[in-house]
Amino acid sequence: MAPLRIGIAGLGTVGTGVVRLLADNRESLVQRCGRPIELVAVAARNRDKKRDADLSAVRWHDDVTALARDPAVEVVVELIGGHDGAARALVAEAIARKKPIVTANKALIAHRGNELAAAAETAGIAFQFEAAVGGGIPIIKALREGLAANRIERVYGILNGTCNFILTTMDKTGRDFADVLGEAQARGYAEADPSFDIDGVDTAHKLAILAAVAFGTPLNLGAVHIEGIRPVSAVDIAYARELGYRIKLFGIARRTEHGLEQRVHPCMVAETSAMAHVDGAFNAVTVDGNFVGRVVLEGAGAGAGPTASAVVGDIVDVARGLRVPALGVRAQDLRALPVAAIERRLGAYYLRLEVADRPGVLADVAACLRDDEVSIESVLQRGRDPGERVSVIMTTHATLEAGMRRALARIAALPAVQSPPCMIRIENEL
Amino acid sequence: MAPLRIGIAGLGTVGTGVVRLLADNRESLVQRCGRPIELVAVAARNRDKKRDADLSAVRWHDDVTALARDPAVEVVVELIGGHDGAARALVAEAIARKKPIVTANKALIAHRGNELAAAAETAGIAFQFEAAVGGGIPIIKALREGLAANRIERVYGILNGTCNFILTTMDKTGRDFADVLGEAQARGYAEADPSFDIDGVDTAHKLAILAAVAFGTPLNLGAVHIEGIRPVSAVDIAYARELGYRIKLFGIARRTEHGLEQRVHPCMVAETSAMAHVDGAFNAVTVDGNFVGRVVLEGAGAGAGPTASAVVGDIVDVARGLRVPALGVRAQDLRALPVAAIERRLGAYYLRLEVADRPGVLADVAACLRDDEVSIESVLQRGRDPGERVSVIMTTHATLEAGMRRALARIAALPAVQSPPCMIRIENEL
Repeated sequence: MAPLRIGIAGLGTVGTGVVRLLADNRESLVQRCGRPIELVAVAARNRDKKRDADLSAVRWHDDVTALARDPAVEVVVELIGGHDGAARALVAEAIARKKPIVTANKALIAHRGNELAAAAETAGIAFQFEAAVGGGIPIIKALREGLAANRIERVYGILNGTCNFILTTMDKTGRDFADVLGEAQARGYAEADPSFDIDGVDTAHKLAILAAVAFGTPLNLGAVHIEGIRPVSAVDIAYARELGYRIKLFGIARRTEHGLEQRVHPCMVAETSAMAHVDGAFNAVTVDGNFVGRVVLEGAGAGAGPTASAVVGDIVDVARGLRVPALGVRAQDLRALPVAAIERRLGAYYLRLEVADRPGVLADVAACLRDDEVSIESVLQRGRDPGERVSVIMTTHATLEAGMRRALARIAALPAVQSPPCMIRIENEL
Repeated sequence: MAPLRIGIAGLGTVGTGVVRLLADNRESLVQRCGRPIELVAVAARNRDKKRDADLSAVRWHDDVTALARDPAVEVVVELIGGHDGAARALVAEAIARKKPIVTANKALIAHRGNELAAAAETAGIAFQFEAAVGGGIPIIKALREGLAANRIERVYGILNGTCNFILTTMDKTGRDFADVLGEAQARGYAEADPSFDIDGVDTAHKLAILAAVAFGTPLNLGAVHIEGIRPVSAVDIAYARELGYRIKLFGIARRTEHGLEQRVHPCMVAETSAMAHVDGAFNAVTVDGNFVGRVVLEGAGAGAGPTASAVVGDIVDVARGLRVPALGVRAQDLRALPVAAIERRLGAYYLRLEVADRPGVLADVAACLRDDEVSIESVLQRGRDPGERVSVIMTTHATLEAGMRRALARIAALPAVQSPPCMIRIENEL
């Protein structure tokens, strides 16, 4: 059978990984696809950069969109990144020329996925993005196909390897956030500007994609409540351990009676939960379906090899002629769901307050909580020298987030409370 | 779009579950498939049996093969079980009539999969069996499609819920095998004749299927080394804990320098391994790919709901017009691999010997091991009253199974050794 001729735009870590995979696994790919996958063209900025891949036989394009116009290219692989600019222009050009698209670009999907999915469908082409979520874990395929028989009730996971590496290292070493972040940056695990990862934006992109595919609803990134891991300190991690929890950054999407809830924030999960032991740069996604029950998929969440595995897995689908609507259902059949605001969350909370160590402080704090019917489960206060500031740790019984927030605002305004309260949601059902 | 009309043969737990799923999730299935899935006919022995599903609107066939001949049936769903008889006849009839087949029948695939996959391919029809392995876990799709970019090095897992339930219960309660098996039978978790499960045959069927799909090789059930869990006693489980291990029944398939290794037997896995915590009726499968690294999938391994999820997931593929060769590669492209015999295994071993408590016994045992260059890692012998029999527990360093077996034969023949030695393989890399 004729080879499938592909063009790759972007030759960073992932692009180079894809080139290597296509060469290393050429034989088994031919066996699986019944035809070779042939790299015929690439587009990248710097032609002279040293790369760990042999590109002597392929055509170079300095202009990214020219890759999609190249008549030899049948499938466009977009590995540039970013939700605008070159990546968007390339994908638009590929759609206009009815060439199937494979991308690892979560920002592009999260921001433009609805219009791109519809346009790809109208053009009659495959639009694949397995690598956008969970690195090498085939979670998009699992939701879109393998678990398609289910009404999905909830999907959640540890979706950002950088955050998980930082939290795991803080937990194992007792070091503080800034210190571990600095090491992660030095080692190349975190970007020079880490805000995209550590403020939860990357996780939100991935969660919005998972939610759309799981619930058959249009992408709604704007509806995701987003908090990152900057406020998590070494003492919180130590107290979490003492209370039988671990702290992880989760993305959680869930059907509720009020609509679709989507939120990204640090969570305390019981140390008996499998999720508590997903460490380092690993990702894990759990799916709750009405017939299958709970299914968990775990694997490397990033890196050249795992991401290349997902990208080429998508190319194999194209080579085999498999095509499913990009978001799992046809664009016209996506159904918008009401947004369940974070204030509707019903659950337990962990609070850490830095207070002046003087009489009556605990009574004032307790009164703030009582006034919004927040019921205290446990209090932990360690003695210090009189007059010094002291940490008060509290956990609550299940309570509505709206009330918790009102109580917290009053607590923050108490004269004895000396820095913004730290609040971490306890998730006993993850 | 026109509905996809299916016929179901077999209305036991799984068949009834499929009928219920099609009714309960009708709306979301229409959304995902772009067309309804309509049950038009069923075949089952007892028309009058009370079932938890509404079958008033479907045609009944008392003769199973008549279901495939029914002109209204476009897709045949085989849920009868067994690798011969009615199930085989039905599948043959469906192939002859070029009707796509969805089955949950692991015995049929393990025994007849090569010829059936080839025949289905010649007929140009889909032949799907996601439900045959791992219950609701979409592992066949993951190997065949999601991870298809990889050269798979190893696939292994906990594949039998009955065995895992028994071992987990023994571990949690300290009760002995026969006792727990009796309870499992009383509760319906184990069959009246449990040998299929507890002697490892069911796991071997599933492993042979996983291996074929993972390695692009013909099914070779005869090459699977099979041991079950009968020899595992409560004391072994207790000693395993003491040594930092858990005992689980694994199926392991692996490329080695000698060829493809396929084996089913109880293993000791480190309690720090994620696999050690897959408990009760859960299944888990780990895949090691050359680019993706390690991916783990976990979920309910059996039961009406999870199995129905897998069966209907396959039907959704058919409704969407997706078709991949049954074993992931075309029949003509499957490549037989040499069989790596169990004697080639290189690894550590746990031994429990029941010996007469008299001088010189340990020296004799140690000499047997030394003569085959088996190096002892640890010995544990608990004092009893002199003259009574006593358990000697040993673990070895990595050694070749062939030598271990020769040593074990000599040890079993020692006059002081009072019952057949118990040997459990230690798997430090799972």
